[in-house]
Amino acid sequence: MPRIAYVNGAYAPLREAFVHVEDRGYQFADGIYEVALRVAGRFWDLDGHLARWTRSLKELDIAAPMSERALRLVINRLIAKNRLEDCYIYMQATRGVAPRNHPFPLEGVRPSLVMTVKPLDMRKLNANAVKGVSVITEPDIRWGRVDIKSVGLLPNILAKEKAKRMGSAEAWLVRKGRVTEGGSSNAWIIDKDGALITHPLGQEILGGITRDTVMKCAQELQLRVIERAFSVDEAKNAKEAFITSAMNLVTPVIAIDGAKVGDGKPGATALRLRQSYVERNSG
Amino acid sequence: MPRIAYVNGAYAPLREAFVHVEDRGYQFADGIYEVALRVAGRFWDLDGHLARWTRSLKELDIAAPMSERALRLVINRLIAKNRLEDCYIYMQATRGVAPRNHPFPLEGVRPSLVMTVKPLDMRKLNANAVKGVSVITEPDIRWGRVDIKSVGLLPNILAKEKAKRMGSAEAWLVRKGRVTEGGSSNAWIIDKDGALITHPLGQEILGGITRDTVMKCAQELQLRVIERAFSVDEAKNAKEAFITSAMNLVTPVIAIDGAKVGDGKPGATALRLRQSYVERNSG
Repeated sequence: MPRIAYVNGAYAPLREAFVHVEDRGYQFADGIYEVALRVAGRFWDLDGHLARWTRSLKELDIAAPMSERALRLVINRLIAKNRLEDCYIYMQATRGVAPRNHPFPLEGVRPSLVMTVKPLDMRKLNANAVKGVSVITEPDIRWGRVDIKSVGLLPNILAKEKAKRMGSAEAWLVRKGRVTEGGSSNAWIIDKDGALITHPLGQEILGGITRDTVMKCAQELQLRVIERAFSVDEAKNAKEAFITSAMNLVTPVIAIDGAKVGDGKPGATALRLRQSYVERNSG
Repeated sequence: MPRIAYVNGAYAPLREAFVHVEDRGYQFADGIYEVALRVAGRFWDLDGHLARWTRSLKELDIAAPMSERALRLVINRLIAKNRLEDCYIYMQATRGVAPRNHPFPLEGVRPSLVMTVKPLDMRKLNANAVKGVSVITEPDIRWGRVDIKSVGLLPNILAKEKAKRMGSAEAWLVRKGRVTEGGSSNAWIIDKDGALITHPLGQEILGGITRDTVMKCAQELQLRVIERAFSVDEAKNAKEAFITSAMNLVTPVIAIDGAKVGDGKPGATALRLRQSYVERNSG
């Protein structure tokens, strides 16, 4: 059965899912997106993802393509059409189609909305987590508003491509000597006292939805969380390290730039947080 | 007659010109572009634009969609199909269509190539130049590799939209107290001694093709050019100011953040440079 996509009001086979060449998403990266998981018929953190979706649109002054309620209907309909139990949902909105010109188009141009779903293999996802991943560090050369989840991801893909070539799963981005976050995940370390440390919210990082839920898990597990920037050296000498994102859940980091973190095995606390996160979402 | 676009090997009416939703240009801003002018049957600086096109592709490790020779054939064919004498040519290449994943797709994915043309009204362009334009200043929050002409233009459009709302034509971007360039043009001032000052090349500005040609014009006119960063205050107190780009040619700046430059009228030297630039390209 072919995969079905949603494009501006229509459901179509993915291979026939097209947008106009003058869509501002294509010519200007003038758009935003979200990725969310659905596992065993339950959405994970969908409320959070939709809230961030709305915030990103607002920050860029892009009109919402539809209400949150309508968006949920489309998501559900698309999943039903694709007959998927476990899946990733990708949704993207842009400022719409208009003759190419930098400033916003005149009123009347409707924002674009595209949605795709992709099968998710939870066993594979979990198998990777149990092994842990290695990360490299790269200069954070992104723009000054990465708190907006825009499709302007060129620096991210360059960093992640470099990581891949080095045999690593993620690139931790470093600004002024401090790790801001990963190319597509938030970065965490655990210090010798067992406290969780991660970069504070602000315009220098994306406010991760998974990051937020993991904070709640940490609270339940009575773990201390400190929101402050940390250096690469500090990370290399940490007890544990891990990354969080909708697609990674909580994944232990076992090496940074080739240097083992702790004993080079997935940390017990990271794995406990992962389990707590999965249970919280599984209900 | 409908406008015709070129999309991945096919010529189609612009309204039917589409790219796939999983084109990496749409999901990651993973692509580059050029804009060039054709006036009275002559291309302006096309060699320079094509050289920069090739450089941008190389910097991002995107395969050239076709040879420069083939590209010129497509450009000419597209212009012929649109029966345009004076026009803008817009060309964009991306890393191609692949299932969404940050790192580069596996080999075998072909880069995408899109080209559109738009009528150009030289009289209108010149009428604007004679009046001069005002600019505002905005923090330069772009990424660290703006020397690559990528489609990741979100910070640029936000700055230019703000300029438009303030009644200005351009936003001059300021990093560490110095003007780097405009949202879609290079920024220049002329000091009391008549020397032209503009930001040096590097990763902080786009190496303008028009900037480069204007340097040659300045040389012919025996004007001194100093490549160094200048402050906003320096610009406000300059004798003249102007911007350069393929779409602006050389356009005098008459006000910066509401403060008159010189006597608030287009500067004589800027207008002379414009004329020299036009003559040079008109042959």
